[in-house]
Amino acid sequence: MIRRGLQVIARLGHTSALPGPSCVPPRLDVASAYSSSTDALVSRFCLEKEGLKDYALPNASWCPDMLSLYHEFLEKTKSDGWFKLPSFKSNQEHILGFKLPSAFKGTSDKKDGRICTRSIPAEGQGYEYVIFFHPTEKKSVCLFQPGPFLQGPPGFAHGGSLAAMMDETYSKTAYLAGEGLFTLTLNIRFKNLIPVGSLAVLNVKVDKIEDQKLYMSCVTQSRDQQTLYAKSSGVFFRLPLEEESPQ
Amino acid sequence: MIRRGLQVIARLGHTSALPGPSCVPPRLDVASAYSSSTDALVSRFCLEKEGLKDYALPNASWCPDMLSLYHEFLEKTKSDGWFKLPSFKSNQEHILGFKLPSAFKGTSDKKDGRICTRSIPAEGQGYEYVIFFHPTEKKSVCLFQPGPFLQGPPGFAHGGSLAAMMDETYSKTAYLAGEGLFTLTLNIRFKNLIPVGSLAVLNVKVDKIEDQKLYMSCVTQSRDQQTLYAKSSGVFFRLPLEEESPQ
Repeated sequence: MIRRGLQVIARLGHTSALPGPSCVPPRLDVASAYSSSTDALVSRFCLEKEGLKDYALPNASWCPDMLSLYHEFLEKTKSDGWFKLPSFKSNQEHILGFKLPSAFKGTSDKKDGRICTRSIPAEGQGYEYVIFFHPTEKKSVCLFQPGPFLQGPPGFAHGGSLAAMMDETYSKTAYLAGEGLFTLTLNIRFKNLIPVGSLAVLNVKVDKIEDQKLYMSCVTQSRDQQTLYAKSSGVFFRLPLEEESPQ
Repeated sequence: MIRRGLQVIARLGHTSALPGPSCVPPRLDVASAYSSSTDALVSRFCLEKEGLKDYALPNASWCPDMLSLYHEFLEKTKSDGWFKLPSFKSNQEHILGFKLPSAFKGTSDKKDGRICTRSIPAEGQGYEYVIFFHPTEKKSVCLFQPGPFLQGPPGFAHGGSLAAMMDETYSKTAYLAGEGLFTLTLNIRFKNLIPVGSLAVLNVKVDKIEDQKLYMSCVTQSRDQQTLYAKSSGVFFRLPLEEESPQ
């Protein structure tokens, strides 16, 4: 049942993207399906949720570059249209009051779950990051400091940890910019390794939104923009969340 | 210094891959640079290292599918040319007696570091996996069971965690099949979500080795091959490790 639901969604997302025999996928009524405005989504997403810890706040492990750029962007939230996104330990908490589309009914309820980028609790050891989002310009900046538990080559971040950080930044941006829920493709070109404990800045922008797909790109570099760490692109599938029915 | 070394390597890897003005990159003498045979690399890699914990062994969290397929492949190590790769907590331990190429000198020595896919110590919570490698056929199989700390959508593995698992499987395969050390590109097409706690089987093969690059591909599916989770390709840059000089 779960599998069938997922396969339907996967097929929806892929049929028109892949070469091969012509096949017309079932389509959503785009106008009615995506009725939530970006402003409404951002407001709901950024709402303070009592009792939930926001992990996207400075701690003693943050390097000076990370801390100062955080404060620069925090200033921009006051007048330049940027929003600091909260980051809870799981997406279950991010979508409180809502549920995944009915195609996903039957999914086991993992209340003890964590987002993979919030899975290492010790400060500074894993993924330290904060995402700022600009609704009008449909772009995000993620300040990312990989810790020593994210190593690939000794002393440097694992390519897979950067891939995960990109996917997470894409996913939050995709959701807020256009109800993008699922990654369809992720293409990364790595250029330089990120030293553990240093700051990498991910600049994500939505390039276009077409029917059920969001197309995004990301440039990851050092704060001074002198070192390019990676470039990537991502495509997300759009699907609105459903309101939980009152118990 | 580190940065310059990395940029040289990155440029080496990318110049001939990217479209644009023709530029002849400096090249290694391939015959002399890659003198280690695959057999010698595998023997060294699989050598039991006293006092180091191998995390790629069954534990109580493994689902029945994972456990039975593990034992099937373990049987194949006796006669079919497969090797079970040990998995230590960091690559520092995997390359004991060797060091990264001199271009990386100056990298901080993170003795407390972990590979990102071995960063969640509690059994069953994070990345449970074991990789089997076939030197003659230059292919690998990774049995991967994502735990509840690797979630994206509630109940399912985060796309980024699968990306990290792919990159890690590629990297071990690339190293053993042809001294591939660094990911240059990683392209993933996601097809279905992996339910947390279930088994995904990553089938990786080396498609070709050309001078300083290894080209690989991966198909990830359920054990019964009825559900395709993702397809990907990866390109790695080849660079031999250096022997440590005796102290």
